[in-house]
Amino acid sequence: MNKDYIVADKWSIIEEGFNDDHIKASESLFSIGNGAMGQRANFEEDFTGSTFLGNYIGGIYYPDKTRVGWWKNGYPEYFAKVLNAPNWVGMHLKINDTIFDLNLCEVSDFRRELNMQEGWLSRSFTAKLSNGNIIKVNAQRFLSIKRDEVGAIKYSVTAENFDGTLQFSPYIDAGIMNEDANYDEFFWEILSQSEADNEGCIVSRTLKTEFSVATAMKISFEKNGTIITAPKTANLEAKKMTFTYAIDVVKGETVTMYKYASSTSSLNHSEDAIVSEGYKNVQEAASTGYAELLAEQVAEWASIWEMADIVIEGDVKAQQAIRFNIFQLNQTYLGKDARLNIGPKGFTGEKYGGSTYWDTEAYCIPFYMSTKDAGVAKNLLMYRYNQLDRAIENAAKLGFTDGAALYPMVTMNGEECHNEWEITFEEIHRNGAMIYGIYSYVNYTQDFDYVRDFGIEVMVGVSRFWQQRATFSMDKNQFVILGVTGPNEYENNVNNNFYTNYLAQWSIEYTMQSLERIKKEAPEKYTALLAKLNLTDAELAKWKAVASNMYLPYSEKEGVYLQQDGFLDKELIPVADLAEENRPINQKWSWDRILRSCYIKQADVLQGMFFFENKFDKKTIEKHFDFYEPLTVHESSLSPCVHSIMAAYIDRMPKAYEQYLRTARLDLDDYNHEVHEGCHITSMAGTWMAIVQGFGGMRVWEDGKLTFNPQIPAEWTSYSFKINFRGQVIRVYKSQTECKYYDESDNEITIETLAVNA
Amino acid sequence: MNKDYIVADKWSIIEEGFNDDHIKASESLFSIGNGAMGQRANFEEDFTGSTFLGNYIGGIYYPDKTRVGWWKNGYPEYFAKVLNAPNWVGMHLKINDTIFDLNLCEVSDFRRELNMQEGWLSRSFTAKLSNGNIIKVNAQRFLSIKRDEVGAIKYSVTAENFDGTLQFSPYIDAGIMNEDANYDEFFWEILSQSEADNEGCIVSRTLKTEFSVATAMKISFEKNGTIITAPKTANLEAKKMTFTYAIDVVKGETVTMYKYASSTSSLNHSEDAIVSEGYKNVQEAASTGYAELLAEQVAEWASIWEMADIVIEGDVKAQQAIRFNIFQLNQTYLGKDARLNIGPKGFTGEKYGGSTYWDTEAYCIPFYMSTKDAGVAKNLLMYRYNQLDRAIENAAKLGFTDGAALYPMVTMNGEECHNEWEITFEEIHRNGAMIYGIYSYVNYTQDFDYVRDFGIEVMVGVSRFWQQRATFSMDKNQFVILGVTGPNEYENNVNNNFYTNYLAQWSIEYTMQSLERIKKEAPEKYTALLAKLNLTDAELAKWKAVASNMYLPYSEKEGVYLQQDGFLDKELIPVADLAEENRPINQKWSWDRILRSCYIKQADVLQGMFFFENKFDKKTIEKHFDFYEPLTVHESSLSPCVHSIMAAYIDRMPKAYEQYLRTARLDLDDYNHEVHEGCHITSMAGTWMAIVQGFGGMRVWEDGKLTFNPQIPAEWTSYSFKINFRGQVIRVYKSQTECKYYDESDNEITIETLAVNA
Repeated sequence: MNKDYIVADKWSIIEEGFNDDHIKASESLFSIGNGAMGQRANFEEDFTGSTFLGNYIGGIYYPDKTRVGWWKNGYPEYFAKVLNAPNWVGMHLKINDTIFDLNLCEVSDFRRELNMQEGWLSRSFTAKLSNGNIIKVNAQRFLSIKRDEVGAIKYSVTAENFDGTLQFSPYIDAGIMNEDANYDEFFWEILSQSEADNEGCIVSRTLKTEFSVATAMKISFEKNGTIITAPKTANLEAKKMTFTYAIDVVKGETVTMYKYASSTSSLNHSEDAIVSEGYKNVQEAASTGYAELLAEQVAEWASIWEMADIVIEGDVKAQQAIRFNIFQLNQTYLGKDARLNIGPKGFTGEKYGGSTYWDTEAYCIPFYMSTKDAGVAKNLLMYRYNQLDRAIENAAKLGFTDGAALYPMVTMNGEECHNEWEITFEEIHRNGAMIYGIYSYVNYTQDFDYVRDFGIEVMVGVSRFWQQRATFSMDKNQFVILGVTGPNEYENNVNNNFYTNYLAQWSIEYTMQSLERIKKEAPEKYTALLAKLNLTDAELAKWKAVASNMYLPYSEKEGVYLQQDGFLDKELIPVADLAEENRPINQKWSWDRILRSCYIKQADVLQGMFFFENKFDKKTIEKHFDFYEPLTVHESSLSPCVHSIMAAYIDRMPKAYEQYLRTARLDLDDYNHEVHEGCHITSMAGTWMAIVQGFGGMRVWEDGKLTFNPQIPAEWTSYSFKINFRGQVIRVYKSQTECKYYDESDNEITIETLAVNA
Repeated sequence: MNKDYIVADKWSIIEEGFNDDHIKASESLFSIGNGAMGQRANFEEDFTGSTFLGNYIGGIYYPDKTRVGWWKNGYPEYFAKVLNAPNWVGMHLKINDTIFDLNLCEVSDFRRELNMQEGWLSRSFTAKLSNGNIIKVNAQRFLSIKRDEVGAIKYSVTAENFDGTLQFSPYIDAGIMNEDANYDEFFWEILSQSEADNEGCIVSRTLKTEFSVATAMKISFEKNGTIITAPKTANLEAKKMTFTYAIDVVKGETVTMYKYASSTSSLNHSEDAIVSEGYKNVQEAASTGYAELLAEQVAEWASIWEMADIVIEGDVKAQQAIRFNIFQLNQTYLGKDARLNIGPKGFTGEKYGGSTYWDTEAYCIPFYMSTKDAGVAKNLLMYRYNQLDRAIENAAKLGFTDGAALYPMVTMNGEECHNEWEITFEEIHRNGAMIYGIYSYVNYTQDFDYVRDFGIEVMVGVSRFWQQRATFSMDKNQFVILGVTGPNEYENNVNNNFYTNYLAQWSIEYTMQSLERIKKEAPEKYTALLAKLNLTDAELAKWKAVASNMYLPYSEKEGVYLQQDGFLDKELIPVADLAEENRPINQKWSWDRILRSCYIKQADVLQGMFFFENKFDKKTIEKHFDFYEPLTVHESSLSPCVHSIMAAYIDRMPKAYEQYLRTARLDLDDYNHEVHEGCHITSMAGTWMAIVQGFGGMRVWEDGKLTFNPQIPAEWTSYSFKINFRGQVIRVYKSQTECKYYDESDNEITIETLAVNA
């Protein structure tokens, strides 16, 4: 049973009616963010029902002490997590001395809207309190894209059936915990509090990592649209600052509270300046005024949408879904800061620690390349370049030598955080994604300078790892890679995962080609590089030996590459024949049963064919799709997008559409029964690819050419998307009957006229 | 670097000289036990140095909440551990108001002795305190074999150079913790305390499991050998009861304190009776007197040794070692109580939770069959029979049906405790050991009645499991067993582990043979059994299909069965070629590196050939030994004994002797650098087998025949051992020149004259 309570709408996510069961899911879905920080859709006022508080600031993390049952050598001591940061949205509200709490009221006309076009969240309802008072509330808030340390709240209360007092108590609460704290520890210490007039600020600092954060607020009021002043009482507790204002109303009157808030941190300011910058932020926000801040927000989002929007006609749910995906990606990462990255849950939950996974290189880079300028994708690559030393240290911990690099499965600052041996030590295909990310960036941008100046060092480190990690099988007379976990995490510690072996081989080859190109184009740079990396011909010969003689498991009988050695020993029963009560298998089956089954969590062999489609002919891909798709349960968010793209490629549009819906509405319809923990952000970039690369058939080839092959699902009237391709903006329009291309000024063009394809 | 500070002696474990670094190791090595409870060699008096307190009562356990990093479906909620029980040995001692603490003294003439012949621990030393007072201490204690709830301590202090006051404060401390508590919780609640005269008792109860334990003590004194009375001050704290006695001495005088203690529990008494039984125990002990209790102890141990001793001439260290192994086994389990079993660390430490492993069936049963009467081994089998329902529940949790049973990897009460998926769910070979234990019991005792009345139900449950767990490979056209961990735990989640597949096949076959025999010998019982177990011909046909077509990985090229599929893809570098800095690999290498290496933690294919030696010819076994032995690192305590036996079998006595020393002195010489955590009790039964089955070549064949083939290491003059074989006691004597057999009355016999072999 999927939760499908979200109202279909082209531009907004809408919830109508108050339903206890949806609170946490909605807190995720209605999250707001501005690329620098994010806030779950927690209510401003008190709520005694089930809730999951979350306010996250990009780059502010804490290394929580690892918890394992059985320690293995090489496990990291810590798991870095994005912290739940001081609460800036909170407010207690009393209506004639009765605390207002939606959990204790009769609620009607409840409506929540996340307006994606303009970038704000609103909530309105009528509530009858236990004391009989009825209030009408309209609340709206946003995190400013333009002022990315600032949030603003407008909260209006109308006395529907009474005269009396509304007591507003906005607060900053620094006494917040992470729900996923391994040992229920408090991760912050409170350094100082200050307040004056209607402003206040709490400075708190993370333990161990010592990031300081100043959380400031400034409060003002209107009654019936007119500014009023109200006497303030300030209450400073150990970790919390509360301002209290009592405002008398008569029946029908409306009081509006404005709360301007700011989070400034030592990540972006000197330690000394965070308080003054925080006050400055809220003062400037207040003097600009809520309406003007909102106008800025609308303009910023208009500019984002101008480039990033995908228009789908004839299918409101598909339209809503793709915009939700694009919106959340932009809320999570705008590419301004090379220290940040895209956590699998973005700023919408704690799970996965908010850290960086291979998702970025494998799924997110194309989206950011096409909808932003090239600097954004480059920032994502630089993130890994800047962490190369840590990747080398990580490999050394596992016994690799001479500059071999193993990028972590999960990281915040470059150090490995994860602690399951079958993932941490064995899901090494992630390392190949580091090179694949560079490859797709270079193909798209033709910016080989990045490789020459930075990327090549990452590539050499990774290739060294692959050469050392492969071992020679006397039995096969080929190189093998033993003991790995592929993208399909429903297999652990397998030998010769096709995807991993292929990627390893390709990684070395591509690195060697790139070295050759540097040698040719910049011989002095090449010489310096060899010296810097201590890279010798003897080592390159070893690489070549591995890459030229890598074993890839293949079945002559089935005519397919095997996911790993021994795959054909499994009972190959299609997912379709599996009784519904077994699904999802990761919730119903014990781990051993999953492992020995044939079921595939996410694209694995097909992930390889997706990456390297140009290396296989269409018939071959079709054959593999027919072999593996029926065995795939898509219990990873990263799976359906790849299957959608591959299905479109082999002209299976109904299957492509089915998988598209699954990826696009994964969170909105809560396919995996887990959206309350947060949204699946990185797979949203896969959704974008499912349209642009899948239906649109966009490809950028190694020779630099750009091609399209648009198809359209039978359910749609038309769709169109834009891409920013080497400075040229191209819009692709596809309907059931025609396919057109437009330039930036909306003149129709042909693809052949693009400079790049000339 | 092995710790080899233990003084060689035929009958005692001796430590000379006080060395801080040895404290915890000695606490393990000098542990005392009586089969019902055990006590680490913690000092009686205060000690501020590093120490690991441990007093354990068989069967008193606590289900500690599981701690894992990443939860998997099917993991148990709890890990049952034998609890650290209230401290009965403790005493504060003040010498003229200065607390005596060996950590704060000048110590000389320190000597510790564990007299294995008589079953007591002693300690003597001279200590100069910070106040200049010099005392001489002689302490002795034991846990009574005859009165298995009773312990006694004699503690004498001589004032060497001063007149003044000796203040003895013996206590019972119920405020004890387990060092391995997952969440640092206190597992007991204190119910009551009582005291009168020189007696006192604390009743405490375990949380959750609600075992009540009354810990009682009774104190008396002598001065210079004469009974004295001293005024007592009682101090009752929340969890601790202390009696204080101040006794004046003049230089040269000796005061001796006797502490009689008792642990009675609700396991063996009604809840109401444990206090009165506790008082009764200490009163009877006191009135019997220390000397007489000790005489009882000497007699009890003489009787144990009469049957169990192995005499080795010409090699004191080997003699000491085998007696240490036999002694510890008897301290751990005497076979009186079918509810108890043999934890891998016995009563010498907390590790492994004190629970039951497959070690019992695979290693311990032969020792108990040969050195006790058959009822003891039967009790060990009944332990599993009594837990069959839980094993069926456990299998059901993992998706098995229709009465299939999976015995736990680690258990206290029949429920699985372990929580690593690769062990808990995959190390399923343990299930076969349940049948192997029955097989070796029946061969040895010819007690098929046990099978008919009890064992067959275990066998059917296990065979059902194997039939369901095997799957059919279309590719191989045979049944396969995917995703297992064999005895060699340096491989996880492998396919077709030879040992597991072979054992599964054999289990089903032996069960079917046993069913046939029951059908023939007791047709009405057979009919009732089929009805009770709902066992049909259709199901038996399925068993047969699996057993008759089981795939066993084999290399034609190497001429050996492979440990698992793909084993030959590994780099097969002998352990001898591995640089010393890599050893032990489980402390030096990350887990993935261990897994993809060829190194074998403990006998795996060879374990199978050890169990089923009669199914393979000697040349075949030799070939497998030569293939696998060089790859085996023996980092499990259970490994060298098997290799020793197999080496002897194929006439490689130097290798057999090398492996014998390793198993026999594993703890005494601390090969694995971990004896401070406790001794390896179950592998001690393997040491016994290494002599009796290895050097002695004893075999009991399926047809009931008993044979020997004694060989002797070049380093020994002679050895002899006894076995209790179907009520006949046989002593085997082997020297470099002769081999003789004796009956119970020490008349020389020939083996051919045994009734069984007639």
